[in-house]
Amino acid sequence: MIKTLQDFGERKLIDQIDMILSKNKRISGIGDDCAFISIGDRYLLVSTDIVSQRTHYPLIARPKDMGWFVTAVNLSDIAAKGGIPLGILLAYGLPKDMPVSDFEEIVHGANACALSCQTLIIGGDTKEHNEIVISGTSVGIVDKKECMFRKGAMPGDIIAVTGKLGKAAAGFLAIEEGEINEISLQGLLHPIPRIIEGRKLAKSRKVHCCMDISDGLSSSLYQLQKVNHVGFSINASYLPTDLSLESICKKNHISSIEYLLHFGGEYELLLCMPPESFSILQANIAPTCLTAIGEVTEEVSIVLNDTSGIVSLENKGYEHFSSHFFHEKH
Amino acid sequence: MIKTLQDFGERKLIDQIDMILSKNKRISGIGDDCAFISIGDRYLLVSTDIVSQRTHYPLIARPKDMGWFVTAVNLSDIAAKGGIPLGILLAYGLPKDMPVSDFEEIVHGANACALSCQTLIIGGDTKEHNEIVISGTSVGIVDKKECMFRKGAMPGDIIAVTGKLGKAAAGFLAIEEGEINEISLQGLLHPIPRIIEGRKLAKSRKVHCCMDISDGLSSSLYQLQKVNHVGFSINASYLPTDLSLESICKKNHISSIEYLLHFGGEYELLLCMPPESFSILQANIAPTCLTAIGEVTEEVSIVLNDTSGIVSLENKGYEHFSSHFFHEKH
Repeated sequence: MIKTLQDFGERKLIDQIDMILSKNKRISGIGDDCAFISIGDRYLLVSTDIVSQRTHYPLIARPKDMGWFVTAVNLSDIAAKGGIPLGILLAYGLPKDMPVSDFEEIVHGANACALSCQTLIIGGDTKEHNEIVISGTSVGIVDKKECMFRKGAMPGDIIAVTGKLGKAAAGFLAIEEGEINEISLQGLLHPIPRIIEGRKLAKSRKVHCCMDISDGLSSSLYQLQKVNHVGFSINASYLPTDLSLESICKKNHISSIEYLLHFGGEYELLLCMPPESFSILQANIAPTCLTAIGEVTEEVSIVLNDTSGIVSLENKGYEHFSSHFFHEKH
Repeated sequence: MIKTLQDFGERKLIDQIDMILSKNKRISGIGDDCAFISIGDRYLLVSTDIVSQRTHYPLIARPKDMGWFVTAVNLSDIAAKGGIPLGILLAYGLPKDMPVSDFEEIVHGANACALSCQTLIIGGDTKEHNEIVISGTSVGIVDKKECMFRKGAMPGDIIAVTGKLGKAAAGFLAIEEGEINEISLQGLLHPIPRIIEGRKLAKSRKVHCCMDISDGLSSSLYQLQKVNHVGFSINASYLPTDLSLESICKKNHISSIEYLLHFGGEYELLLCMPPESFSILQANIAPTCLTAIGEVTEEVSIVLNDTSGIVSLENKGYEHFSSHFFHEKH
């Protein structure tokens, strides 16, 4: 039997790439949010994320949403390392029968997101393709002493998230119900990269590790577990829920917990720090909240404390080649 | 009538993007091979190029060719500015039924190309897509005093190219004739980024402007004309022809001139310099040859001197959204 990408899934594929590629100590990156290039006492941060109509944008996404989204997801990787963004490049694959005005809207959306993070679109590429595919590259810089890696979690650390969880899920659920409006589209497709918060956290030099939770909280925890050889004990009742998710779940008499734990497309930061630093960091990044959701354990397992007791947390976040969100449901 | 991308073509679209995007004096890039980010007395160079099966790879391209090609075209942009490469990122959109072994071959091809330019693949992204699309990002660095821009050509300058022209065209023609073998595939899909030559040219500080000729020689001349508000007088008999193109054209009793002037997919450098510097530069970059192909004129027009006299040079290079090479012919 020939093994195909769907037999592997995205994570195993990344491990495979890592085994093939030549390495150099000055430069590293595979397995973290960004690549790190050593330049004197700073790291240059570079990250690339490719998004396409098929896997990322619901069919009702407007061009301006697409431009914002691809820019935001790329900036989020810089935010997660505590970097100052230096610029974004966008490479577009576009159908030749696409209206020019739609394309202009994509560019406007991308420009607006870059400006909101005090950076600029500084280059790119345009090529013909059969459907919309946009590949972004974000470039940033950070002092080596401030840089937050995925590796660094220590047993006894507090694990925390920025902001509230569930905006993307709420947008998705509302769109599923036919509520296609500014609020639902913004929820799903206008994440705010946590650049300001990332900088403040990095400058504190109290953070042991950090990543964004773009693939969902459970998937992110499993990724941190793998890199750090530690476990996590998460308290379900601590998860900070966005009002939009709370209200749509209440309306539909469903629980929000599955969405909080597993829904991807969220761009908050997930970070670990020593318990004594938590309140300092929390005060530091106000008014965006920082919420402790559990602790790092020596036991290499991920458990969830909820009303029914302690259960093993499933790894059900989004994984390319083996999961489908939008287009199976739509 | 709604205007679509094919009404505009790639160049006009880039102008349109440039009009929309916010600007900053410290950072520039749209319209050159790379984006330039000022870091002290150096420029960080960043470039992105997206390639897909439909527009770039003939149907018989092997996975390792795809990996080499996307890496090479991205490194070529660093070469054209005289930069030292710092790393490559590759974002893959891949069909989920693709054999893992094919994907591994792509990664091997990319790694080999990066190593050949003394750099590494340092990061990337893998996502599901309906066909193979690979977006590369190259990162490099260059002293500000050495950096070669597209802008800078002066009337009276010599215009020259590195290497020989026609390897890609020869590979393409051979493949069209059914000669699908290592030689034809290498010709078309294994360009050598002129990193070493770019560095030597940059260090000389004698070069007025430089770009790579990925879209074909005529297209590149028109792009330089636009940025520099000068003209070019090109001598057809000076164009350095690769033996592979000479021999396939002889065999088929066709002239090579159209291929030399207009065929894309070639990654030599096109540069202008004062006449007194030409022989110094030529000696500098031996054994790769540097050939003077004409001169820069005050008159803003591009003319070709051939056996029939002086004619206006047509702009017939490859342009996305309005040209098709592979799949119209195949």
